[in-house]
Amino acid sequence: MSMPQPDAPETMRQDVDWARVREDFPLLGRTVHGKSLVYLDSANTGQKPAAVIEAVDDFYRRHNANVSRAVHALGSEATEAYEGVRGKLARFLNVRADELVLCSGTTFAINLVAYSWALPRLQAGDTILVSRMEHHANIVPWQLVAQRTGATIRVAEIREDGTLDLDALRTAMTPDVKLLAVTHVSNVLGTVNPVREICREARRRGITTVVDGSQAVPHRAVDVAAIGCDFYAFTGHKMCGPTGTGALWARRELLATMPPFLGGGEMIREVSFEGTVFNDPPQKFEAGTPNIAGFIGLGAAVDYLQGIGMAHVEAREAELLAHLTGALDALDGVRIFGRAPEKAAVVSFLVEGAHAHDLATLLDLEGVAVRSGQHCAHPLLQFYGVAATCRASLAFYNTHAEIDAFVAALEKVRRLLG
Amino acid sequence: MSMPQPDAPETMRQDVDWARVREDFPLLGRTVHGKSLVYLDSANTGQKPAAVIEAVDDFYRRHNANVSRAVHALGSEATEAYEGVRGKLARFLNVRADELVLCSGTTFAINLVAYSWALPRLQAGDTILVSRMEHHANIVPWQLVAQRTGATIRVAEIREDGTLDLDALRTAMTPDVKLLAVTHVSNVLGTVNPVREICREARRRGITTVVDGSQAVPHRAVDVAAIGCDFYAFTGHKMCGPTGTGALWARRELLATMPPFLGGGEMIREVSFEGTVFNDPPQKFEAGTPNIAGFIGLGAAVDYLQGIGMAHVEAREAELLAHLTGALDALDGVRIFGRAPEKAAVVSFLVEGAHAHDLATLLDLEGVAVRSGQHCAHPLLQFYGVAATCRASLAFYNTHAEIDAFVAALEKVRRLLG
Repeated sequence: MSMPQPDAPETMRQDVDWARVREDFPLLGRTVHGKSLVYLDSANTGQKPAAVIEAVDDFYRRHNANVSRAVHALGSEATEAYEGVRGKLARFLNVRADELVLCSGTTFAINLVAYSWALPRLQAGDTILVSRMEHHANIVPWQLVAQRTGATIRVAEIREDGTLDLDALRTAMTPDVKLLAVTHVSNVLGTVNPVREICREARRRGITTVVDGSQAVPHRAVDVAAIGCDFYAFTGHKMCGPTGTGALWARRELLATMPPFLGGGEMIREVSFEGTVFNDPPQKFEAGTPNIAGFIGLGAAVDYLQGIGMAHVEAREAELLAHLTGALDALDGVRIFGRAPEKAAVVSFLVEGAHAHDLATLLDLEGVAVRSGQHCAHPLLQFYGVAATCRASLAFYNTHAEIDAFVAALEKVRRLLG
Repeated sequence: MSMPQPDAPETMRQDVDWARVREDFPLLGRTVHGKSLVYLDSANTGQKPAAVIEAVDDFYRRHNANVSRAVHALGSEATEAYEGVRGKLARFLNVRADELVLCSGTTFAINLVAYSWALPRLQAGDTILVSRMEHHANIVPWQLVAQRTGATIRVAEIREDGTLDLDALRTAMTPDVKLLAVTHVSNVLGTVNPVREICREARRRGITTVVDGSQAVPHRAVDVAAIGCDFYAFTGHKMCGPTGTGALWARRELLATMPPFLGGGEMIREVSFEGTVFNDPPQKFEAGTPNIAGFIGLGAAVDYLQGIGMAHVEAREAELLAHLTGALDALDGVRIFGRAPEKAAVVSFLVEGAHAHDLATLLDLEGVAVRSGQHCAHPLLQFYGVAATCRASLAFYNTHAEIDAFVAALEKVRRLLG
């Protein structure tokens, strides 16, 4: 293992051996179409270090049992390990463990807010403010709420460089706005939104805030308490963790007043046909057997990321982004979408005269995995007037050599298409 | 591997080498408190064969990518494997793949029916008929629907032996009944309900049926088409599969008319702030990145179970159940709850003068894992007038020697408590 000690000071950055970190990821040694894989699709899903894969494997081989409902040793071990992960996630995000609802991912988390917070509260005349750059997971739930309550959706617009128009956002925060849905980091543009400042403004106006942290938590230290939002959603599979894991953080006073979402086991204290008493949060919102093994893996992912240090992760990805952006800018006819000063390592682009889909298909033949399409962000692409883009998204396990290989492949593909 | 070929004829039953089957389950070789583990909690969660654990491991090491949204090789491999599992599950249950909504488990599946089928349709004056023996996952969602629509819950009662009172059930199917929620197999009593007959009666009266298959699919061949229900829900982690997996089967004509449940990526065809077009079922009900690796494991679980043959599984468990029941009946002061003629290998019991929790705790010290409590079925335990039971639940990987060890431990524990 290549990881420095947890809590390694920032000055140790040069001590991270990134070549050895990369060796922690078995899949990255793969070939595709006879070429070494260059995986540039981490914003879609992240690759997993062996420590995470092994934690899941070990759980099934040695500790597998259901949680919370058995007194036997296996059951206690499983419950302790599972609740331990809740604690780890809470420390990772600087929140209280009992404010973290564990669930299957960001989509579930945001829908939980839609069903249990927004649906019972909103009504005709109310407005939900949604930024133009949201992923569909932070748009469609609000459209469903709007349809069902008569509330209206208002769009917080962006500027050409892919930053939120903060003046327009402030102006849009009129007294009818009850909810603001905004992403921490754009999955298409890489824009890092000033969510702390935005949430402060919203709070001052009594607007409840939902921040989509899917693309932030994997890539930088996130202090949810400092952001000052009301809800923060994120997903495990983008942060080195297993699929089917994620969480919603919510202010305790909101959780306390929200009706349950899913009904079932574990979210109740007492059930009878005469009347049912619900459990306290967060269990009240965690019906049924959770993805236990998945969360064990997510705990290992948090350990792994903390072992490297999120400041190191962020700095490494910033370097890789600068390299990639510079190399693409040096090519003719490449258009990059998103030039925010604060930007995560996501680069959406198009090449003059080439369809995004064709580019991605030909890049794949060179071993390079990028995503093409609308990236679950149709309204954002409508803003730019394009039907699709290619997106190269990086993680700390990528290398400068991979970026060079990608750029070389892109030049080759462009010649083929030109 | 000890498995006979898939499609092995029934007459080959004697050819299954159950001792070798057992060796497929790494966890079962564990010790607990210095004793060999006797795992009798499979109704809570099932243990996993190495083939399932390795399938998950292999996915993360070699094929991990998101599904449906990338054109690169990894993405295609992941999507093909994931959709392949949908097909496997469909063949396993004798249904169409495009009628199977993949989700996180039974609780989610039933809540999907509650939110997308029942909530928009039911109203004051309507009745939801729920059997006394349901798991909370098939009670609480209907209570939430009843609260929100004004509909009423009616209880279909059971008899002392743990069978549904079918005459009373028929009588209860009055014209105001719009929905019947019934389990295929009781998680506490082991009762196998005649769901085919029940659903035929319900269908004749225009009552929509939701069958909870959680405890059936792991233990017998289930032909969902033959049952003739409208919705069938089940979970992966009880059928040798990973946690966080499951599915809802629904009639296509119902899926076609149901509004979406969760909003997000994948469940849409086109999103704009002016209006959103939803995808076709089943994707319409599958928002967000699914538990991809979990479903890959669930596919391996189906292969594994089919390799043994579900008829063999059922026959093996019937033998083990007969052994266990006979041994407990030979003891004084042991009360068994549930004596249905058609019964799965689940035995709830109490020992005169001993608390269920104390029994389970002391059995654990002998290496025996049973569950004590209300088993997420409070109303059922209220019927029997007990606060808790112990439950020993078997699977095909248990052995006759384990049953003897359990009974010996129970006698020892009883002496300690007596």
